[in-house]
Order: sequence, then C-alpha cells, then structure tokens
Amino acid sequence: MLSFDEKEFMAEELRGLALRGKIEEVVDEICREGYSNLFWIGIGGTYAYLSQMHHIIKSHSRILSFAEEAAEFAAAGNKQFDKNSVVIITSVTGDTKEVNEAVRIAREAGARVIGFVGSLDTPLGQSVTYPVACVGALFYKLYYTAFRFMYQAGDFPEYEQFVKEMEKLPQALLKAKEEFDPAAEKYAEAHGMEPLTYLIGAGNLWGYAYCYAMCVLEECQWIRTKAVNSGEFFHGTLELIEKGVNVLAFQGEDESRPLTDRAVRFLERVTDKLTVIDTRDYALEGISPEFRGILSPMVMYQLCERMSKHLEEVRKHPLELRRYYRRLSY
Amino acid sequence: MLSFDEKEFMAEELRGLALRGKIEEVVDEICREGYSNLFWIGIGGTYAYLSQMHHIIKSHSRILSFAEEAAEFAAAGNKQFDKNSVVIITSVTGDTKEVNEAVRIAREAGARVIGFVGSLDTPLGQSVTYPVACVGALFYKLYYTAFRFMYQAGDFPEYEQFVKEMEKLPQALLKAKEEFDPAAEKYAEAHGMEPLTYLIGAGNLWGYAYCYAMCVLEECQWIRTKAVNSGEFFHGTLELIEKGVNVLAFQGEDESRPLTDRAVRFLERVTDKLTVIDTRDYALEGISPEFRGILSPMVMYQLCERMSKHLEEVRKHPLELRRYYRRLSY
Repeated sequence: MLSFDEKEFMAEELRGLALRGKIEEVVDEICREGYSNLFWIGIGGTYAYLSQMHHIIKSHSRILSFAEEAAEFAAAGNKQFDKNSVVIITSVTGDTKEVNEAVRIAREAGARVIGFVGSLDTPLGQSVTYPVACVGALFYKLYYTAFRFMYQAGDFPEYEQFVKEMEKLPQALLKAKEEFDPAAEKYAEAHGMEPLTYLIGAGNLWGYAYCYAMCVLEECQWIRTKAVNSGEFFHGTLELIEKGVNVLAFQGEDESRPLTDRAVRFLERVTDKLTVIDTRDYALEGISPEFRGILSPMVMYQLCERMSKHLEEVRKHPLELRRYYRRLSY
Repeated sequence: MLSFDEKEFMAEELRGLALRGKIEEVVDEICREGYSNLFWIGIGGTYAYLSQMHHIIKSHSRILSFAEEAAEFAAAGNKQFDKNSVVIITSVTGDTKEVNEAVRIAREAGARVIGFVGSLDTPLGQSVTYPVACVGALFYKLYYTAFRFMYQAGDFPEYEQFVKEMEKLPQALLKAKEEFDPAAEKYAEAHGMEPLTYLIGAGNLWGYAYCYAMCVLEECQWIRTKAVNSGEFFHGTLELIEKGVNVLAFQGEDESRPLTDRAVRFLERVTDKLTVIDTRDYALEGISPEFRGILSPMVMYQLCERMSKHLEEVRKHPLELRRYYRRLSY
C-alpha cells in the first residue's frame, strides 16, 4: 500500500493494546476513590476524538459525561465541573496551549486528570494526575478508558470479552485497510481536486466526519470542506447539493446508522459525486457482531488514513505542510 | 429599512414579552413538582437556538442541562434522560418530523415537554405537556424559560431585574437594527456573491454562527458556508484563509469573547475580507452592563435579520425559495 509501513503500523497497534493494564489500573483506582462525572476535554482533532467517546458513553451508560472544547471550557466553564470530576485529555506534543490551560484549571480545582501524552517530559506530562505515555494508538487508549469506566459502573458487563476481541483488531484493521485501499485511490484520483467537499456522518462517527473535514482535509490538504451531521443535513445544507457537488458519507454501524442511510438515499438522487465509506463492508475477523457498532470509529479512522495518503499523492501536497499552524505565533 | 415593517416587528416583540406570565407559571409548576434535568431538543435552526440556551445554563447554573439534536436523540438516546426530565422544544409549523419523534419518545418515557408551537392545533401542539402558542418572538420564550429555571434553582437571583429590563429590548433592538442596517447593506453589496463564506463565533454565539451559516445562508440563500467555533478555528480551518477569502465573525459579550478576539486578530493579518459584527457596538438603552453578555444571542439575531434582507435584495434570491426542503419527500 502507498506510503504505508506495515511493520510500523502493527507496532503502533501493539503499543495500543499494551496500554490496557496501565489504563485499567488508573480507572480502577479512580472508581475506588469515586468521582462525580467525566470531562473529555480537547481541541480540534482531540476534541473530535474525545467527543466520540462521550457520545458512546452518553448513549450506553448512566455515567455523567461531558465533552468540552478546551478553549470554551477555559473561558466559559461548566458548572457541573468540580473537584470530583475526572478529566481525560490526549496530546501528542504535550504543549497544546488550550489543553494546557484547561488542565491547569482542572488541577487548580482539585480534579484528577488522565493525560495521554507523547512524552511525559512536557508541560502536560508534568501537570496531569495520571500521565500515560504513548505515541499514536489513538483509539485503544480511549476505548480502554471509556469502557473500563462503563464496566466499573455496571453498564458494560461484556468488558472482558470486548477487550479480548480487541486483540484481533490490529490484524482485522490491516485487512480492512488493504481492502479499502483501491477505493481510496480511486476516490483521490476522481475527487482529490474538487473545489469543495461536503462530509456527513452521525452517531459515533459524527465526530470523525467533523475531524476528517477540519483536521485532515483542511489542515493537511488545504481542501475546502463543510461537515454536517447526517440528521442536520436536512435542515439547510441539502439546498447546496446538486449535480457535480462532491460529498463523502461516513457510514458506521451504531444506532444512528439510519440517519446517514436517509441522507445517502437523498444524496443519490441529487448528486453524481457521492462516495459512501461504510464500515459494514469489512469483515473484522474475530469481532462479535454486537461490538461492531461501538468499533466504527476505529475502523473509519483506519480506512481514512488510506484516503489521506492517496490524496497527498494525487494533490502533490505533503500531509505535513502547514501555512500557519505552529509556524506563526497567534 | 429595507423589507422591514416596524409595526409588525414591534408587535412580535410585544407578543414575546407577553409570554412571560404563562412561562413562569409552567416553569414554577415544574419546579414545585421537581425534575431531574433539562433537555433542549431541536433540529437545524431550533437545535442551534436551544443549544445557545443550554450553553448559557451550563456555564452559569448547576442545573443539569443537555442539548440534543432530535434525530440523534431518537436514534441513539441519552441515558441521562428519564421520566423526571423536562424537554423544551420549539417549532413554528408544529410538524417537524424529527422533533415530533423525539417528543413521542419523551412522552412515552413519562417526561414532561414544554412546547412552543405556532399553532396548538398541530401534532406537536397536541402531544406536548405544556403547549405554549406563539409565532416568532423566538428568544423571549427561550430566555424566560431558561432564566426562570435558573432563578428557581437559586442561580439567578437577578431574575426580576432582568425580566424588567427585557421590556426595554423591543426599542433597544429596533435601534440596533437601524444602526446596523447600513453596514448590513454594505456587507451584502461587497460580499453577497462570494463563492464561499466562513463564519466564526464562540460561547453563546457559536450556536448562532452555526445556525446563520446553515439555516439562513445555505437554506435561504444557497450560499456555500462553513461555520467553525472561534477556538476550533485554530485547529484546521485557519489553513484555508488567505487574501480574498470571505469571513464573517460574530462577536458577543459573554465569557468567550476572547476566543473570537484571538481569531479576529489572526484573520486581520491573513484576509482582506473580514467582517466583524460586534454586539458591543450597540447601546441597548435600559440594559445593565451585567446582562449584556447573556443577551448577545438576541442582539445578533436581530442584526443578522438585516443582513439577510440585504442579501436577498442583492442576490435577487427570495429568502423563502427552497429547492428541496418541504418540497420533496425524503
């Protein structure tokens, strides 16, 4: 596969799986001590990923959970936040300004912070209560965290079976990527140069549609985008879609699948440039049917990585290129 | 002012003020009976408006409050929802499919629903617990509802003074509209035909930036847009902004003002097409400084009405024209 190092991929996946013990230890300790609620706090991409975990919790568990954009949290606050709250943050660099400020506020209030950081030797690594060092392996750590909390709350008795099956993911995801790769290439060739791309998604994939639009297409490819929730799509954005307008639909397998189904049925009638990426098309060997829905974010993330690499190639625009971000002070 | 009937405007505003007694009665009854939490449930524009109320409550009150997109609520649910929850919905037509479904679910669970509907003789008007008939006067009803709940929770002791000052709003908003009108016309003439418009906003105006982009510019003017929270802007969208790119910034006076300030300072450096609409520029006679921040949504809504009318004129595109919405079945 293009720009893909299988050994590196598998190593990262295994690093993700290896985090399980440490995370269970942290979550179990917090559950023993007690807590009032969970705050998933991020900005940009991390806000999007964490809000996917929040979505899963709020629709499957009585745990009180909030997703907060770090800058808004620091400015306006949330009166549900107190010293018994638990904050979960993730940052590769460990120096994201807004997240650091949110953590400062949280720690000052006496709250505990679980921090997934690339290196412990960073401002974030130093300031969180429970630092967990890890590079990449994004969703493993978030899933272990969310589902361990749910398990301890009595809302996910299938935990042991679920985490056991997660061990099959590296291989299953690799296979899904390989299968999707030709379609990713085709998409990039056909639509890589479109002037504007609409993205839709719902449920636990809405956060990823938002993220892929803003943090990959906009930030890493300078492609103009608009992401809209598949349900919201019918209340405004639909008027812009006609023949020739490019739309990407992220379809998963959770309870909100019918929302995207409805949008896709409509889109098929009005545009000739609709691409649907559906997690259901991939076998995910070793994963029980009842877990597929909650795993859609992990699958979509890996499929889209393929698309990004082909877009980079077709557009001759390195994914690392930035005009302003971390290049200009503001 | 263009396409503006002052008598009709004032009549609508007074109808809004007149809702106070009825709403206080409903909220007080609910508070006497007790409730677990508030669910602001809408779709498209109503989701956006209601989420502005949710934002104000979560940042100023210990009341547990949730904003839910109706289709997502119906599909995925929220485990915090129970028979003691109170749902607030608003719908002019009373036949919005997704909202009707959410209300059906809520009523079936035994929850109480406050419904602001254009006519009581509609499916929604018939199915909610507390129907309140009203056409337009959007924010009065929502403000009375939100702040009465906050008052009864002990989180807004200034209620009596606040609602007394709200009586000054019809005159103050009319004056603001008159003052902003020339700028609205100038904006429409200069930028009405732009191929793509970015909108930013934060805090209690983020919902309105989202709404004005999708429910006015997209739905009523078929203008391509992307709305992004002013804090999120720095994590992707900024890379798309350069000379010639059109940006509208909605600036208010709540705690999140610094987020938009920061984005505006950056935007001034990179595009020559930045328009800032700032509620602070309007006197709002009779309104105390401490209430200006929470009133920013009402002010911005009225200012933007002026902009919409000038866009309609410049673009020769009636605001009522739809391609698909409520014209096609889907």
